[in-house]
Parts: sequence; structure tokens; C-alpha cells
Amino acid sequence: MTRLPSLIISAGDPAGVGPEVTVKALAQPHVRDLAEIAVAGDPADLHRTAEQLGLPTPETIEPAGDAGRVRSGQLSTHGGAAAVAAVRRAVELIQAGCYDALVTAPINKEALKLAGFDWPGHTEMLAELTGTGEVRMLLVTDRLKVVHVTTHRSLKSAIEAATRTRIVRTIELGYQGIRRLGFERPRIAVAGINPHAGESGLFGDEEEREIAPAVAEARAEGIEASGPWPPDTLFWRASSGEFDLVVAMYHDQGHIPVKLGGFDEGVNVTLGLPFPRASVDHGTAFDIAGKGAARWASMAAAIGVAAQLAVKRH
Amino acid sequence: MTRLPSLIISAGDPAGVGPEVTVKALAQPHVRDLAEIAVAGDPADLHRTAEQLGLPTPETIEPAGDAGRVRSGQLSTHGGAAAVAAVRRAVELIQAGCYDALVTAPINKEALKLAGFDWPGHTEMLAELTGTGEVRMLLVTDRLKVVHVTTHRSLKSAIEAATRTRIVRTIELGYQGIRRLGFERPRIAVAGINPHAGESGLFGDEEEREIAPAVAEARAEGIEASGPWPPDTLFWRASSGEFDLVVAMYHDQGHIPVKLGGFDEGVNVTLGLPFPRASVDHGTAFDIAGKGAARWASMAAAIGVAAQLAVKRH
Repeated sequence: MTRLPSLIISAGDPAGVGPEVTVKALAQPHVRDLAEIAVAGDPADLHRTAEQLGLPTPETIEPAGDAGRVRSGQLSTHGGAAAVAAVRRAVELIQAGCYDALVTAPINKEALKLAGFDWPGHTEMLAELTGTGEVRMLLVTDRLKVVHVTTHRSLKSAIEAATRTRIVRTIELGYQGIRRLGFERPRIAVAGINPHAGESGLFGDEEEREIAPAVAEARAEGIEASGPWPPDTLFWRASSGEFDLVVAMYHDQGHIPVKLGGFDEGVNVTLGLPFPRASVDHGTAFDIAGKGAARWASMAAAIGVAAQLAVKRH
Repeated sequence: MTRLPSLIISAGDPAGVGPEVTVKALAQPHVRDLAEIAVAGDPADLHRTAEQLGLPTPETIEPAGDAGRVRSGQLSTHGGAAAVAAVRRAVELIQAGCYDALVTAPINKEALKLAGFDWPGHTEMLAELTGTGEVRMLLVTDRLKVVHVTTHRSLKSAIEAATRTRIVRTIELGYQGIRRLGFERPRIAVAGINPHAGESGLFGDEEEREIAPAVAEARAEGIEASGPWPPDTLFWRASSGEFDLVVAMYHDQGHIPVKLGGFDEGVNVTLGLPFPRASVDHGTAFDIAGKGAARWASMAAAIGVAAQLAVKRH
């Protein structure tokens, strides 16, 4: 009998919807069947959250952080510190071999800052905690999977950062990631950066200078990559089944089409870390935290994706 | 009894699907009921197209161009010249007061170049033929309407061109256009240019420097504008009914979400010309031209939008 993959969820900022969506998702038998699942967080807070929702407390809790002084929906130093403690603990346990993959509930950038941390988000935090040089963001929905050459930087600097080397690395990481999601020979489409992919150099030369050579290099490595394609129709083509993965040149090029499909189903995967990591595709949602109204579909989807990635890790 | 608006369709490159979708759309009684509709093109070519399709020849043809030496699906000087002749004739007749609005069937940029014209597309051609300084592209679908600050230029230069002045003018032209489409007090959302709309200056300062002041200026003029909004979720919000019009900062920011909805229903409107102009949202499609397989839904939608815009012109 095959061992189930084992995951650990970092519960996120206790002032946000993280503990709530975690408890709700783990209350679903079909979610629990996906993997052995532990939660890193404040046990008292998780227990209180479960009680308020009338749901069972998660079975396995790895104690981390103190949510005692945190109030639902309120930005605080304590919330930021507890969120970081949960991620740190989860990473330690994975690195010690106790779990296969990480699922992260939402943190808040402002709370992190209050608590003295400068990371703009999980991705940068995890890269530092694991000493990883290059990571990439992969967004996963049923119809569309997109890996990004860059994410959190100005559009102007994103254009400059879209170099041949960085694009090749993105294609490679995307290729490895999408294969772990079950695509044996993925068809990878690389987007252009300019309208109409530059219209043969008329509207910019990044396609000829950086992107086309990167596609050629990936193909020489045996990856079925194509492009640069005109960005405006590419996401429609991919979502219609022509491609398995799109390589987006900048944050919004990939995020706009993914988010247009609705918020619930999106899963955010970090590629390039020493272990698989999936995250919900929403924030702390302080405005609805503590009210029992948060939807757990994205957390369930993140658990599902992390379980898939973890199985293939073995 | 109110007079029907009167439109003229330029038939496009005779080697492409323009004449075919024109004949097909005009064969629909519900399309003919929208307006008095004439076609500018080669009468012999339109007649031959209708005969091949087993459909009636359009009732009113304004002779323009010679398609005698053009072959379906083949790029040619003659095709480019005929396409330009049809547009010129249509513009003359509108300027002479014979018609209220223009609908354009697709032309081919390469054919235009062969025929000695440097316009990258209809928009630039029409701006020059009418001596118009500033035009803007509005994309119209049922769920999403987007006006663009810039279109056919490199992404890098589009960022530089997104100045306060240009953004204000875009909001104003978008406001006028969307009102003609029946939105009395339109809610206009202005997109940011950087991820998360710059995250308070962390990822670029264009939002604070150019976009926010432009929004304030439009509001001072009494336009219900808001933003700059994070681009990644804005198009989802607008398509869910929160806004009537989105102001996109560059070509793909607006085109990616519109095209994701599918190709058939999109209509391309040029704002700022002395008369309303709508266009199909597809190209000449040389690969399927002359085979009777082209879909006329976008042409019908363009006629519908042009008729709406023309009514409000009176």
C-alpha cells in the first residue's frame, strides 16, 4: 500500500481568515483523504476557531506562535509574528523530513512589517528561509496554468528583468512543476512582452532579443516550448486546451487572465524551493475574518495541488 | 416615426473574410432591422461572394476599389489597395452627410504595406483621413468594456506614454463613448500600471505620479472615475458588474481579459473621430477566406454597436 503524502499547513495571520479556511477545509472528509495533514499554528487559537464554527479541531497540530493577543480582523504586530512563527516551524519540520510539502494560509504584508520583517510575501520569505536563489510563481486553475518570469516589481523593471537567462530558467522550472502535476510531455507556450509579440520588431525588440532565443534554448533541452506568442490571444488559446502551461513575462500578464476566472479555485505554487509549496490565492481578508463567512474552496484546492506535487516528489 | 440610423460598411481586404462576413450578417433580417446599411466595396466581388454563399447581394453598394485581380486567401497589392479604397469612399460619404457611422471589415497590414501605405491599422488610417489628433480604442463585449490609454507601441514606451494628460483624455473619451452606449452615469474604473497598483509606491510610482492625479482631474469634471485599482482583480470586478468601463493603461492589459471571453462577440470602437466607428474584432483570416466558414457574429455585433452610437449622435 502506498503511503499518503504528508503536508503541513502554516495557519497564516490569526487575525485573518487563515485558521478559519484551514479548519473548514480539514473538516471535509474528501480533503482529509488527500494526504496526512498537520497544521502549524497556535493550538488554542485553532481550537477556539473550530469551536466557533462548530467543526472539529484539526487532528495534528504542530504548535507555533502565540495568537493570544490577536483580535480578528485587526492588523497587529502579534498577528505578523505568529504568522512568521508558523511558517518557520513548518519549514523546519519539512527540512527535518517530517512532512513532504507546505501549504500556506494567508499572511499580511503590513503585519509582517509591524513585526519587523521586510518580506513582501511568502515567496520571498521562503526563498530566504531555505537559502534558495531563484523561485518562480506558478498559478494553477483547472483551465489555465501560468508561470511568471517576474512578479512583485514595477512593470518597467519587469521588462528589463525579462532576460534570456531568466526566461530559460522560468521555462525549466515551469516544465518541472507542470510535469509533477501530471503532464508527461507538456506543451509550453511562451508569451511575448509587447502587443502582437512586437509585430516583427515594429513594437519593441524584446521578443527577438531575449524571448525567441530563450525558447530556442529550452527546445534544445528537449522541452516542447513555443513562442513568443501574441499575449492577447494566448491565454484564450491555452484555456481552450491548445497549451498546458503559459510562461508570462510579468505579474499582471498572467494574473489578469487567471483572476478573471474567479477567485475561488486559484492555487499559487512556488517553484524552485527544495520542497513543494502551494498557497491559497487570496489574502487575509480582514474585513470578513472571524465572521465564519470565508470560503474554503481555495484552501482545499491548494491542499489538492500540494498533495499531487508531494506524491511525485517521492 | 424615428428615422433608422444609417451605416456604411467598408468591405475590407477582398482576399480576406471581410466581404463574406458582411454578406452573411446582412442576410440576417434582425441585423438589417438595426439600421439602413450600405457597403463600400467592389460590387462585382460582393455579388460573386453572395452567389457562392447562396445569399442575397447587399441591397446598397457604394462602388469602391477593384477586386478583379485578388484571389481569396492571398496577400496582394491589389487587396491592400481595394481595402483602402473602400475605407476612403466610406469616410467621404460619411463626411458628406450620407451616412451616420462606419463599420469596418478587416484589412491586412502587410497588404497595406505592399500597396504603399504605412498605417499599422484602421485606427491610424482613420485618424489621418479625418485629420483627428487623438483617438482611443474601446473594446466592447457584453460583460466587459475597456478603453485603452495606448495600443500599438512597445510596452516600454507605453509606460512612458501613460501621462496624466493622456490618461485624463482617455477617461473623457471613454466617458463620452460609454454614455452613447446607454450608460447615463457610468462607473469608470482606472487600472494601475504596476502589480497591485504599485503597492503604495513599492513597485513603481506611476500610480502616484500620473494615474491618481488623472483620476482626481476627471472627478473634478464630474466623471464618476475611481482608481488606480490593482489590475489583476479589476477586470474580474468589472465583468462581475461593479464597473461599467475600465481604463486600461496598455494594449494587453485590456486585450487579454477581453479576448479571454472568446473572439466572436468583441467589437472594436474608435473614440475621438468625427463620427462613430465600430469594427469586427478579428483579422482577415486568410487561412479560411473563400471557404464559406467565417463566422459573422462579430460583424453583426459591430453593426449593432455602430447603430447604437449613431442613434445617440443625433
